[in-house]
Amino acid sequence: MNKIDGGVTAAKGFEAAGVASGIRKKGRLDMAIVYSQKPCQVAGAFTTNVVKAAPVKWDQKIVKESAYAQAVVVNSGIANACTGAEGYGYCQETAETMSDALGIPVDAVLVGSTGVIGMQLPMDKIKTGVEQLVEVKNASIEAGTAAAQAIMTTDTCKKEIALQVEIGEVTVTIGGMAKGSGMIHPNMCTMLSFITTDAAISKSALQKALSADVEDTYNMISVDGDTSTNDTVLVLANGMAGNQEIVEGTAEYEIFAKGLREVNEYLAKQMAGDGEGATALFEVNVIGAETKEQAKILSKSIACSNLVKTAIAGHDANWGRIICAMGYSGAQFDPEKVDLFFESKAGKIQITENGVALNYSEEKATEILSQEVVIATADIKMGNEKATAWGCDLTHGYISINADYRS
Amino acid sequence: MNKIDGGVTAAKGFEAAGVASGIRKKGRLDMAIVYSQKPCQVAGAFTTNVVKAAPVKWDQKIVKESAYAQAVVVNSGIANACTGAEGYGYCQETAETMSDALGIPVDAVLVGSTGVIGMQLPMDKIKTGVEQLVEVKNASIEAGTAAAQAIMTTDTCKKEIALQVEIGEVTVTIGGMAKGSGMIHPNMCTMLSFITTDAAISKSALQKALSADVEDTYNMISVDGDTSTNDTVLVLANGMAGNQEIVEGTAEYEIFAKGLREVNEYLAKQMAGDGEGATALFEVNVIGAETKEQAKILSKSIACSNLVKTAIAGHDANWGRIICAMGYSGAQFDPEKVDLFFESKAGKIQITENGVALNYSEEKATEILSQEVVIATADIKMGNEKATAWGCDLTHGYISINADYRS
Repeated sequence: MNKIDGGVTAAKGFEAAGVASGIRKKGRLDMAIVYSQKPCQVAGAFTTNVVKAAPVKWDQKIVKESAYAQAVVVNSGIANACTGAEGYGYCQETAETMSDALGIPVDAVLVGSTGVIGMQLPMDKIKTGVEQLVEVKNASIEAGTAAAQAIMTTDTCKKEIALQVEIGEVTVTIGGMAKGSGMIHPNMCTMLSFITTDAAISKSALQKALSADVEDTYNMISVDGDTSTNDTVLVLANGMAGNQEIVEGTAEYEIFAKGLREVNEYLAKQMAGDGEGATALFEVNVIGAETKEQAKILSKSIACSNLVKTAIAGHDANWGRIICAMGYSGAQFDPEKVDLFFESKAGKIQITENGVALNYSEEKATEILSQEVVIATADIKMGNEKATAWGCDLTHGYISINADYRS
Repeated sequence: MNKIDGGVTAAKGFEAAGVASGIRKKGRLDMAIVYSQKPCQVAGAFTTNVVKAAPVKWDQKIVKESAYAQAVVVNSGIANACTGAEGYGYCQETAETMSDALGIPVDAVLVGSTGVIGMQLPMDKIKTGVEQLVEVKNASIEAGTAAAQAIMTTDTCKKEIALQVEIGEVTVTIGGMAKGSGMIHPNMCTMLSFITTDAAISKSALQKALSADVEDTYNMISVDGDTSTNDTVLVLANGMAGNQEIVEGTAEYEIFAKGLREVNEYLAKQMAGDGEGATALFEVNVIGAETKEQAKILSKSIACSNLVKTAIAGHDANWGRIICAMGYSGAQFDPEKVDLFFESKAGKIQITENGVALNYSEEKATEILSQEVVIATADIKMGNEKATAWGCDLTHGYISINADYRS
């Protein structure tokens, strides 16, 4: 596996653009396109929220029913959620405008939106934006970056990655971009992730690889079920690398899936670390579990606890909050068996043994907890399964961002 | 029902005290006693957290197995949770010291602790505190207030109430005190509530009334399962009012239960409104539900959403976050049927009709949301059931309090 520069335009035949259509403040990039020169197999994963935004409903239909997909158009600023039949109509109109401009079928156009819930899209601006996107789109790294910037909302930095794997004797590229940073119940603020690859792969193999990844990456930066109205992950594969089509159950599938996992894990961690107002990425490992499910529930409960997150923000080894968060997670374990460790580039320290505090140095613990990446590991000594969840610290910045997000 | 002054000492035969034992900063009240001149029937409700603090284990045993209870001793500052066998031993030693000082059986002494998890109790201070409590305890209103102050941690104000009901021709008094203010996942910070009454009532009737109340009051300021290691509600009934013993299934039971509900609901709302850093009590009604369970799940999901709470803090009618919180709650409903209202002493305003925004005045909405008590009501138009949950806004104060709680 070889990491390379770029994002959604890294793979062969993919173009992108980001433009300022005027939905948001003047000059702010707010619309993006991802376009493939050839038709793509497409796989998707969507929010489990009962309230699904119009673009989610649209994309679910495309992923399920269309022969292929070829473009994604995304806007930030307005989520087009809770907008009723009118909002779904605007969604369709956006796709139609893009379809006309590109000369591809309307059911090959995916859409995405992120922003304020309950407002209708300004269709005049959206249509002008679509025309601009089609005009300026190109295959440069910079074009991919512009797209990654245009989908940001409260994100403090763009999130993109690209890497290459060898399938047979063919180099296959996988690239991606994402936005998301609502990090108390992490994906309550919309998470969007768009992956492109020039691999030739069957639709079912692509969907299988994506679905597995979502479980271990995006879903591990969130509390089960706490998904926003708009959460969407899409993978487009155009086959232009020229490899033999990848199907499930082969060595080639495993290689591709490993590359895709790397891309998704990177993007998920970027989102976790870029939590609104966050100053640290917080990684939580639960090891020694009886089942993977148990390890997942426990690690997510810790990573999502506001009291743990505020303790990390305060660089305070308040480990009792970790044990407490494990306790209310719903998973069973023996609190009197738990060994707890904190770790960062400043070192590693054991905090508890069998659920009781060791005589550790608070000073050292504070130093460890003051780094940009902080790792907590809980060994529950019941078996050999483990899981990792990602979160961030919870700071004043989160409140400032969310108390007046709409203003 | 007649509200009167006082708290845990309002009912006949109850005494209380609060003293500064030195567990916390010099001069800060940190130990409390509630004592009954006669033996009491006792009922209790406890945390569902897998991790149970030593005093919770002790009290569960007393409530289940003891013939009667006669005193409660509480400390703040240290939770005596995650303290292993040593911590349970200290718990027992505290009860023994109190038992000796009062001349009552050790299994008639209940204990409570709240504060930092993982530290051992300083038994020298505890023992001195117990002696002081027994010396100064008395039946005055002021003594009850001192006890209510001594159990506070990050609470900004003491929480106590007393009222009287007529049972037959006898006046029965019910009083109580509580502490609790960890309000993101509300009862992650310990909630303690101690109720006293001079009613004569059977143990099973007392437990039945308490269990029903907990469901509709304390559990409605919390997310299911998100209970701290120490959460405890205890009711002591000494029979000194002289009424005929209340048993289940009678008119007298209903009158008593209504009074007890009033006390518990008042204390629960006080806790919700005194969320760490909170500036507003946030009441959420879900009406028109098919089942009460559905209404409960939806109302709690709204009241506990950080994004909704920060919007309330910003006086921002960001109603999409409410619909979103309903959507990920796990309960089914039709988003396109929801009518949403905001209300406070500044007026009432309808925000959505059938899930789509009305053309309401943002200015008026902001005025309504700027009051000390803010009410949101969602009508889901599926049936006739309803439920109410309570929370508070989420502010910078919460972060300040929790980022360095231990310091």
